[in-house]
Amino acid sequence: APKKLLILPGDGIGPEIMNEVRRIMDWMAQARGIRFDVSDDLVGGASLAVHGQPITQEVIDAARAADAVLFGSVGDPKWASAGFDRRPEIAILKLRQELGLFANLRPAKVFDSLADASTLRPDVVRGLDIMIVRETVGGIYFGNPRGIETLADGTRRGINTEVYTTPEIERVARVAFELARKRDNRVCSVEKCNVMESGLLWKEVVTDLHAREYPDVQLTHMLADNCAMQLVRNPRQFDVIVTGNLFGDLLSDLASMLTGSLGMLPSATLGAKGEDGRMPALYEPIHGSAPDIAGQGKANPLAQILSFAMLLRYSFDMQDDATLIEQAVSNVLDRGLRTPDIMSAGKTEVNTTGMGAAVVEELARL
Amino acid sequence: APKKLLILPGDGIGPEIMNEVRRIMDWMAQARGIRFDVSDDLVGGASLAVHGQPITQEVIDAARAADAVLFGSVGDPKWASAGFDRRPEIAILKLRQELGLFANLRPAKVFDSLADASTLRPDVVRGLDIMIVRETVGGIYFGNPRGIETLADGTRRGINTEVYTTPEIERVARVAFELARKRDNRVCSVEKCNVMESGLLWKEVVTDLHAREYPDVQLTHMLADNCAMQLVRNPRQFDVIVTGNLFGDLLSDLASMLTGSLGMLPSATLGAKGEDGRMPALYEPIHGSAPDIAGQGKANPLAQILSFAMLLRYSFDMQDDATLIEQAVSNVLDRGLRTPDIMSAGKTEVNTTGMGAAVVEELARL
Ligand SMILES: CC(C)[C@H](C(=O)O)[C@@H](O)C(=O)O
Ligand SMILES: CC(C)[C@H](C(=O)O)[C@@H](O)C(=O)O
Repeated sequence: APKKLLILPGDGIGPEIMNEVRRIMDWMAQARGIRFDVSDDLVGGASLAVHGQPITQEVIDAARAADAVLFGSVGDPKWASAGFDRRPEIAILKLRQELGLFANLRPAKVFDSLADASTLRPDVVRGLDIMIVRETVGGIYFGNPRGIETLADGTRRGINTEVYTTPEIERVARVAFELARKRDNRVCSVEKCNVMESGLLWKEVVTDLHAREYPDVQLTHMLADNCAMQLVRNPRQFDVIVTGNLFGDLLSDLASMLTGSLGMLPSATLGAKGEDGRMPALYEPIHGSAPDIAGQGKANPLAQILSFAMLLRYSFDMQDDATLIEQAVSNVLDRGLRTPDIMSAGKTEVNTTGMGAAVVEELARL
Repeated sequence: APKKLLILPGDGIGPEIMNEVRRIMDWMAQARGIRFDVSDDLVGGASLAVHGQPITQEVIDAARAADAVLFGSVGDPKWASAGFDRRPEIAILKLRQELGLFANLRPAKVFDSLADASTLRPDVVRGLDIMIVRETVGGIYFGNPRGIETLADGTRRGINTEVYTTPEIERVARVAFELARKRDNRVCSVEKCNVMESGLLWKEVVTDLHAREYPDVQLTHMLADNCAMQLVRNPRQFDVIVTGNLFGDLLSDLASMLTGSLGMLPSATLGAKGEDGRMPALYEPIHGSAPDIAGQGKANPLAQILSFAMLLRYSFDMQDDATLIEQAVSNVLDRGLRTPDIMSAGKTEVNTTGMGAAVVEELARL
């Protein structure tokens, strides 16, 4: 039976960049006879508009039943003041938590032909290839108690709780060590063990797991503030970084920006393999819904296309097809095609569909 | 009576760079008749070695009695495994908490003659002048419950609590708004209100305070992950950034690294004015104790010297003297003098005392 793929385009530029992935799927079906069982649904503002909530239970169930979820982006200014309980972000937070998507993989890679796009000097970022593994269902994002309370004297208190347990730390560290083995074999574990006990436990658990199961991988430890600095000072020192939910949120965005082209960067968020051997997984570009350019054909579809390539690699074990798509993207860039976000002098500007069509053309040629 | 100044040189390069400040104080006494009531004490590894703890109650009391504290840096590899309760960092954490030093001022400024030191392109950072105001006695650094517990099944849980109350947020935001009025009149408040209720409260309180007392200042809000990106993408968009303890830790270090020369950057941490009109305050370079180069005369004393200038400005209201020292530092750089950390082709390398002497020489000339 064909693999089940749930597509959630979301808001803003989500639907239009997702169309370029559909074009690639069409090509795969026609040229190579590869077919998926695709269904589509609403999330974010698009779901709020129809169902009054950023994600419905039906969509969560469909995501759980799928072999993989391809996500666009959520966030719509129309719902900016919808309130804490109805913000579009809930869609992604609920999917992470309900499907147990605990490991967010965020590659920060500089394409040779885009090394000049960075605000960092090209000699500092050329060849950059970092993988940040961020824990995504624990830490301060989900810990209790949480909330805002009003004291007797009228003072208000906002509270959130950071919690990490041994198994939560072990499973995400394991993902990092496994990835490192297929890369440059180095893991840097990041926390604030000099200030936070949850970071102290994090460091101890990663150290123990390393000694027990991954002594062949080089492990180092770094404080989160120092990591923020080192990513700017000399980002190429890193191979795989593993860290908690909140630090990972900042550090992975920081690392992405080093590449200078957010429109190029995919991500994967993986869960644990179930008894049936299936692994819940969600793939999404790291950029947002960019409402300011939605519907204008200006959006760069490459991050969404590369997210689809990650999906083929990690969820469907289609390594060759994933590599083929990545190669096609790289070739299109080498040929000088650029969407407005990565345009520079001497290159050829194309729109969203122009870029998608060029990738398909390149695929047909490879 | 002369102002009381407590000097805490600490570990590593702390003592040697502090000596260059003493040289400036000597010059101020001789050339200008300005005298301080200076005392000296131990912190960090230096205190651990003598007293078995990173800071003694006597030192905390002396700090409280002083008009200002000039701090060097703490951290010594000898005590790396001293345990969570005896880590040298406790010295600074205790001083912050016991003296109520709630507002950490972290300027990130690029000196014209050092614009090439950054890993960012000179066109992106030239003229950079950001002030980050970080809350330093609240948030997840000090909240309870905290600790590591072992559950019945052997699982361990690490817990920390982020707490912010209305008055804690207001007082640090007030510092940011006041500073902005003397600068470019813009404040950007940073939190994660899309995920954390403590961030939601933060945003509300800052918004209300702004409307009530600072409507003349331009206020914007930004999510912490976006701020990490924007600092890399276009750091000059910021004037004053105000944020909580943990985000401030990462973002201020990130902002510092944009300048490319940590050895140049001072900081101030200020408390609330007491009934006697005195404001507790601590000044320190942002760099660490750099044990690898301690005692070799390689350390850059300028961050420590500029911390002393901030002390004169914020604690002793000696604006002119502060400006004079800052001008002397700038001139010395323009003359091409460089310690090894900021050395580049065509410049003149000097050691720690050479740099200190040059600043004094320049002061005498101005
Ligand atoms: C949308 C938001 C809740 C989310 C986060 O903070 O985790 C986003 O910033 C991300 O990094 O995926
Ligand atoms: C020394 C350490 C506890 C401290 C912190 O994390 O606050 C330091 O990194 C800082 O930024 O002043």
